[in-house]
Amino acid sequence: MKTKEIADLVKGELVGDEDVEISRVAALEDASNGDISFIEAAGAIDRLEQVSASCLLIPQNSEIKTTCPSIQVKNPKYAFATIAAELHPFRKSSGWHETISIPDKSDVRARFIGAFVSIGENTNIGEGSEIHDGSRVGRNVTIGNSSIVNPNCVIYDNVTIGNNCVIHSGSVIGADGFGFVRGEDEYIKFPQIGTVVIEDNVEVGANSCIDRGALGETRIGEGTKIDNLVQVAHNVTIGKRVVIASQTGISGSVTIEDDCVIGGQVGFGDHCTVESGAVIGSQAGVLPGKIVREGVWWGTPVKPLRDYKRLNAHINSLPRLKQEIKTLRQLISELEKE
Amino acid sequence: MKTKEIADLVKGELVGDEDVEISRVAALEDASNGDISFIEAAGAIDRLEQVSASCLLIPQNSEIKTTCPSIQVKNPKYAFATIAAELHPFRKSSGWHETISIPDKSDVRARFIGAFVSIGENTNIGEGSEIHDGSRVGRNVTIGNSSIVNPNCVIYDNVTIGNNCVIHSGSVIGADGFGFVRGEDEYIKFPQIGTVVIEDNVEVGANSCIDRGALGETRIGEGTKIDNLVQVAHNVTIGKRVVIASQTGISGSVTIEDDCVIGGQVGFGDHCTVESGAVIGSQAGVLPGKIVREGVWWGTPVKPLRDYKRLNAHINSLPRLKQEIKTLRQLISELEKE
Amino acid sequence: MKTKEIADLVKGELVGDEDVEISRVAALEDASNGDISFIEAAGAIDRLEQVSASCLLIPQNSEIKTTCPSIQVKNPKYAFATIAAELHPFRKSSGWHETISIPDKSDVRARFIGAFVSIGENTNIGEGSEIHDGSRVGRNVTIGNSSIVNPNCVIYDNVTIGNNCVIHSGSVIGADGFGFVRGEDEYIKFPQIGTVVIEDNVEVGANSCIDRGALGETRIGEGTKIDNLVQVAHNVTIGKRVVIASQTGISGSVTIEDDCVIGGQVGFGDHCTVESGAVIGSQAGVLPGKIVREGVWWGTPVKPLRDYKRLNAHINSLPRLKQEIKTLRQLISELEKE
Repeated sequence: MKTKEIADLVKGELVGDEDVEISRVAALEDASNGDISFIEAAGAIDRLEQVSASCLLIPQNSEIKTTCPSIQVKNPKYAFATIAAELHPFRKSSGWHETISIPDKSDVRARFIGAFVSIGENTNIGEGSEIHDGSRVGRNVTIGNSSIVNPNCVIYDNVTIGNNCVIHSGSVIGADGFGFVRGEDEYIKFPQIGTVVIEDNVEVGANSCIDRGALGETRIGEGTKIDNLVQVAHNVTIGKRVVIASQTGISGSVTIEDDCVIGGQVGFGDHCTVESGAVIGSQAGVLPGKIVREGVWWGTPVKPLRDYKRLNAHINSLPRLKQEIKTLRQLISELEKE
Repeated sequence: MKTKEIADLVKGELVGDEDVEISRVAALEDASNGDISFIEAAGAIDRLEQVSASCLLIPQNSEIKTTCPSIQVKNPKYAFATIAAELHPFRKSSGWHETISIPDKSDVRARFIGAFVSIGENTNIGEGSEIHDGSRVGRNVTIGNSSIVNPNCVIYDNVTIGNNCVIHSGSVIGADGFGFVRGEDEYIKFPQIGTVVIEDNVEVGANSCIDRGALGETRIGEGTKIDNLVQVAHNVTIGKRVVIASQTGISGSVTIEDDCVIGGQVGFGDHCTVESGAVIGSQAGVLPGKIVREGVWWGTPVKPLRDYKRLNAHINSLPRLKQEIKTLRQLISELEKE
Repeated sequence: MKTKEIADLVKGELVGDEDVEISRVAALEDASNGDISFIEAAGAIDRLEQVSASCLLIPQNSEIKTTCPSIQVKNPKYAFATIAAELHPFRKSSGWHETISIPDKSDVRARFIGAFVSIGENTNIGEGSEIHDGSRVGRNVTIGNSSIVNPNCVIYDNVTIGNNCVIHSGSVIGADGFGFVRGEDEYIKFPQIGTVVIEDNVEVGANSCIDRGALGETRIGEGTKIDNLVQVAHNVTIGKRVVIASQTGISGSVTIEDDCVIGGQVGFGDHCTVESGAVIGSQAGVLPGKIVREGVWWGTPVKPLRDYKRLNAHINSLPRLKQEIKTLRQLISELEKE
């Protein structure tokens, strides 16, 4: 792509040569001839003379001076990602492997079905979707159009996955929730006969688990992105455009509303609610039943970040406090002597 | 099933019509015609008029008045789970896929072996068991009767699994323990040549890992239930009827005795012992070698819940404490002036 | 092996019969006739009379008196692991399963390729390597010599794995990093088009995830050992001989230098650096951008172990502190009355 075409694509303002050929995206420090990169803020400017990119995306109204052509855009990182999708398109797979047999009552239109894939009865897979090698798709499953199931995933029976989703390798969607009832001298399984619904444009990382609802459903909202090794328990409801980092665990019947951002290794107790727009820091712990409002939260049990920092400062001042009490004690005993 | 039959099954006392046909279990708020649901305590009573279930399980000697037939039982949730198992029985799979070849010296009587399954030499699998698509069962493995190995599990060589177990997808049983010895300038593997023994009625969640013993065995006791993404290291001994929630990690040579309840994301240092009946809250951390007695424990390092709460209250009162010290200082300096 | 041969192998000093036949390694308490075991320090000495091993590895210049032949070595545990590797060698698999077809432009010399394995185009696998049943190896992958990929692993396209590596079951190498850019009302994927490089002698546990670099590479240094269920995000650089215990999560662009030891369930914020020789305790949390120097670290946010312990002691003394302030207040009010 020429610099001009790129500027048009991202609706940016080009300064410099319109006809420079750009073939790859690259990190600022690695970029060389033919590469485009981006600068998010003027702070990166002291490295600018060493940048060898052929084009740079920079913020609007920025005073950044580049030696190569630059394109001013509202959100350089977003524009960069847009261009990357164009220059380095997802490599589509197509064809059905010879080991595939389509079961009864199923409607499979997938563009690609890899080797050693299993597909259950009465299952529908839409056009443009790809089911990669060694993945298992159960009975009565629906997968929409243009969704990618990477190798060795397991989709249990009755699960629904929307359009344009990506499920990374090793993820398990629809296993039994963890619900048991204690009798006199044994546990028996609480029924785990619900479903999982994954809406459109969801991405699920590698080796993550999304359990089916016990009686109702577990739901992942449109545009939500889930990292690797994340646990989503039975009857969890996650809203739209929620981001959940790696190794976070979400207990049964939790609700996380739209546009929340959840760090890594966070733990959610059952039946808690995270209201729209909340941001929860890594390793935080939310107690069962708790309601977390909009804002930034941190720690276990979770607190507003400001409170968390203040409390941490207080804790760190404990040695000084102790010293002070010692001093007061001495002063008092001197006063007593008098 | 008729209400009468259900009452007989759960040994409960039926009040109301004996002949109402019940075909499904449902959550209280979702229940409609033909559904049975349950109430654990009178607290849920304000929603009772909106309940459309055809039958309700309620506690013995309860004063709950229902408009539909009710069945009084000792443990309504347990009775509900019992009925669910009857109304929604586990869907058995049967038959052996054409891709299966039974290796030398093996005795495989499994009811179902799915597509693309591997089974090693000298391995025994009992009657009524199911090995689902893409699972790997190594050499010298024993799996009892009526156990279910869901798709894409891996059972390494020499592992023993009992009767009526369920292993969910993606779980790995019997991988090498994490033991290395540091030499001058490299680590070498400490021998990981032991085994894993899983007793009867154990359930293991999706993508969990149970490592083989280094020299001896790793053992999971009868009736124990393990959630998703749990790590059980080499030479761990877990007793009977232990419940372990998601993402908990158990280091090498830990012992967890019978009837313990372990929350999610708990970490156990090596060689610690959890005595029978202990309950450990989510995200707790148990230091290596520690002995945890019966009771409820919380926090890192783990404390009795009462102590944990008290300490938390103390920490939260730090700002007030600081203020108080300031006041005392002023009072003293006034006294000094006098 | 005879005791004499073993002493030669580990360059130790044999005391006692040179010709005792040793066939197995065993734990001290389980060892019986024909077994060799080890003692790391004189502390274990009170159990010595009950030891039934046929040979014992003991520390140099130790005053431990054994009834069986003993071999004095610098590091008994290391010597034990060395002997174990000799007496219980890794069981090599060989042959290619009939389901294998070698794709175009690939150079596959692996000693073993199991059933239902997928191998992509333009992929090279060296001599003596084993790719076990159900594993997926993508396009343009390089795997060196004598590396073992256990069953049901997924190696995405363009990944490089060195010599003598072991990848345990269910691990996923090279999935997309977790990078998204927020637009007005959706997230789009930040390009995840880099690679993963795993150097020689690396071991990766079961169900772990190592994501590809966004633009550059994710690198695991020579001789590093990674446990089960570990998350290594995009663009992480891990040095040589690093040990990382189970369920630890390493965010994007983190650097962990050579010879670090990382506990389980540790969380690393993005762009932090752990300098060579640092030891980080389990469940610790390292804030984004933080630099962790050599030494022992603990807690969240991570502190030198000494500071962590001191602070914990201060926190535990809070009830006493509170009592003391109360006393001071009384003393002051008595003084005021006077």
